Amino acid sequence: MKKTLLESAAAGVITESVKKIASAEGMTPQELNRLIAAGRAVVPVNRIKKLTQPCAIGEGLSVKVNANLGTSPAKYDNRLELNKLKAAVDFGADTVMDLSIGPGLKKTREIILNNSPIPIGTVPIYEAATRAEKKHGSFLKMTAADLIQVITEQAREGVDFFTLHCGVTRKSLRVMETHPRLMGIVSRGGAIMANWIRTNKTENPLFTEFAQILEIMKTYDVTLSLGDGLRPGALADATDRAQLAELRLLGKLAEQARRSGVQVMIEGPGHVPLNQIAKNVQLQKKYCANAPFYVLGPLVCDSGAGYDHITAAIGAGVAAAAGADYLCFVTPSEHLSLPDLEDIKQGVIASRIAARAGDIARGRSRSWELERRFSQARKDRDWESQLSLSLDPKLFTEYRNRTGKPAGTKDVCSMCDKFCSIKLMDNLEDTA
Amino acid sequence: MKKTLLESAAAGVITESVKKIASAEGMTPQELNRLIAAGRAVVPVNRIKKLTQPCAIGEGLSVKVNANLGTSPAKYDNRLELNKLKAAVDFGADTVMDLSIGPGLKKTREIILNNSPIPIGTVPIYEAATRAEKKHGSFLKMTAADLIQVITEQAREGVDFFTLHCGVTRKSLRVMETHPRLMGIVSRGGAIMANWIRTNKTENPLFTEFAQILEIMKTYDVTLSLGDGLRPGALADATDRAQLAELRLLGKLAEQARRSGVQVMIEGPGHVPLNQIAKNVQLQKKYCANAPFYVLGPLVCDSGAGYDHITAAIGAGVAAAAGADYLCFVTPSEHLSLPDLEDIKQGVIASRIAARAGDIARGRSRSWELERRFSQARKDRDWESQLSLSLDPKLFTEYRNRTGKPAGTKDVCSMCDKFCSIKLMDNLEDTA
Repeated sequence: MKKTLLESAAAGVITESVKKIASAEGMTPQELNRLIAAGRAVVPVNRIKKLTQPCAIGEGLSVKVNANLGTSPAKYDNRLELNKLKAAVDFGADTVMDLSIGPGLKKTREIILNNSPIPIGTVPIYEAATRAEKKHGSFLKMTAADLIQVITEQAREGVDFFTLHCGVTRKSLRVMETHPRLMGIVSRGGAIMANWIRTNKTENPLFTEFAQILEIMKTYDVTLSLGDGLRPGALADATDRAQLAELRLLGKLAEQARRSGVQVMIEGPGHVPLNQIAKNVQLQKKYCANAPFYVLGPLVCDSGAGYDHITAAIGAGVAAAAGADYLCFVTPSEHLSLPDLEDIKQGVIASRIAARAGDIARGRSRSWELERRFSQARKDRDWESQLSLSLDPKLFTEYRNRTGKPAGTKDVCSMCDKFCSIKLMDNLEDTA
Repeated sequence: MKKTLLESAAAGVITESVKKIASAEGMTPQELNRLIAAGRAVVPVNRIKKLTQPCAIGEGLSVKVNANLGTSPAKYDNRLELNKLKAAVDFGADTVMDLSIGPGLKKTREIILNNSPIPIGTVPIYEAATRAEKKHGSFLKMTAADLIQVITEQAREGVDFFTLHCGVTRKSLRVMETHPRLMGIVSRGGAIMANWIRTNKTENPLFTEFAQILEIMKTYDVTLSLGDGLRPGALADATDRAQLAELRLLGKLAEQARRSGVQVMIEGPGHVPLNQIAKNVQLQKKYCANAPFYVLGPLVCDSGAGYDHITAAIGAGVAAAAGADYLCFVTPSEHLSLPDLEDIKQGVIASRIAARAGDIARGRSRSWELERRFSQARKDRDWESQLSLSLDPKLFTEYRNRTGKPAGTKDVCSMCDKFCSIKLMDNLEDTA
């Protein structure tokens, strides 16, 4: 069988994508290979594809951002999903996950896969559960074979990474039940699996059939993202026994995946008080032998509905500074409705800010250089350069145009007029 | 002379506002008095006024939020400023600063003072500079007497706290000049003062006449907010020698203010890398004998123009968790234009989220209780309670209404349909 990227990195083979990514990250291909071989970085690209914008996620690399899209039974419009993909890419997402559960989700995925320059992830249990609903009238009648069938099909189609909730097991559920929570399970995949386990009195097939699933993923070189089905959904549940029991298990499964030649990363919370975030990152790195850490938020308040891109950006910034490698965006509509195009944009930008804050805190020289260029343009009142470096040039221009003069006009600003500190300091330098 | 609040607190007198605020904060009036007497908390209320919503700022208290408003020569509309005040109060600001520099700023201030239920702060040098421009053709011809005149008038009018840039001195400017910066001075008041000092070859009158100024402030019991005229305006300038030289001086001036019976707090940065924020808070507390710390942001990226409410919320959350007491909001329009009503709203909400994140991290039980109530309502799919506890009920309703059913409908959500994790877990509990 052809080598996976993990195996070829270990063997010192420099692939084209490793070369390209290493250059973009400012490191040598050898350095990137060492990180991949050690399981400290992953490059999620399905073997059957060539992505125009691949990326690496993990230690020593810039912090990456994922955007979610996907249909629901209440809203399924493939053109909208395609536009969401475009918006996510345009505003700087590094990867996209298609979380569709609406009718025709296979077609939706096909469109996303065919049009994405960046890696695409999925949660195969969604399709398996949806099919079981249709075929047997209930997702509870889904079988292990159904799940493996979906995983095989999606791998063949070219999905680059899978979220699999292998850590929701009878044992970890017992921990949750003996240490009750405010919110219980808030992961959609986790809740599906927990219901399935309890109803069928059968262990999680993603856990029992893990070796077989790894073989399928290896064949297509799909990267594994170990889902945190028991992530806390409220501040009060953060860093509890169930969360940590699952995390320890994910660490063991990650080790097994790496041994099988499958790249692996670990998903993390969720809702976490700001002062517990660094500890969460440290525990993940410790339990999972420094596998890349992919966090959802974390949200530092439960009460931010409508503004959860901000509650999440605060947590994500702190997590990234502490060593989290990959941020799943959270949109303003989180907890309230399916995101629309504007939500996707807001979510990606907020996450990119958090990622940048993390890169800066971790001393990444390219990020410092970008910030320095922006500040130099600000100091020079060079509005054109600021515009070209800004997160959202259209919005930048709208704000600038409030002055009533074109956005690039050097000395117009509606704020301070002659008391502009920058102009004042320029005058002082001129006279000195 | 009648006692100031600082003096009466030290004498163990329990005033009406101390009683009211202590109750709102969940502490005894004696505890609050001890904090005020020790200079660890302030209650900014001008002696001539009775505020319907006073607040205390500092140690052991919930983190507070300030919103800025004010005219500029390019935009002066008192009705708009009044609406900004209302928006700030409605969305939960604890204080407002009127930073007007537009024509008729005295009238603007009068309207704000007459209509505000919360404390109002100003930066008197703005009015003094504006008057000097009018009277002498240049703010550089402003005299010490002009400054003291404005301070006296504004104190008489009922302003509750003043930002005074007493720390921009010949000595601290020399530190900046011998350790050059990318952005120089970005504080408007700081830049005015630096220009004045250098042009007139005269020491800062806010520094030389500090004792006299304290006497005026004492007469009206105006609280002093020591401005950080040399705050960093770029990540590259953060925590540099000039900033710390000024901070040390502010610590000494704070001590003098307290000895004079004047309540005092300290202003802080600015633009600061996330990993330097906690250190900034610790240094402020150390140099300033635990005076309340009032931060502007800090912004964790320079390049966030258009989204600086988010770059600031990340830094503010981290600062609040580390012990900052009072957050000056930053709006999306920061660095680009004067904020409009929507910007004020966005800025206040983002800051409130950061404040809440800080309260949670500091273990404030009332904040934990609020978050717990919100999560319980989420668990119960009690949309009405979530709505009533939300930051922005109108937006909350808009998002909910995307489902096409009324916002309060229990089982409608456009996201997960039958795979809603909360419903799934409810079913599991029902069958168990």
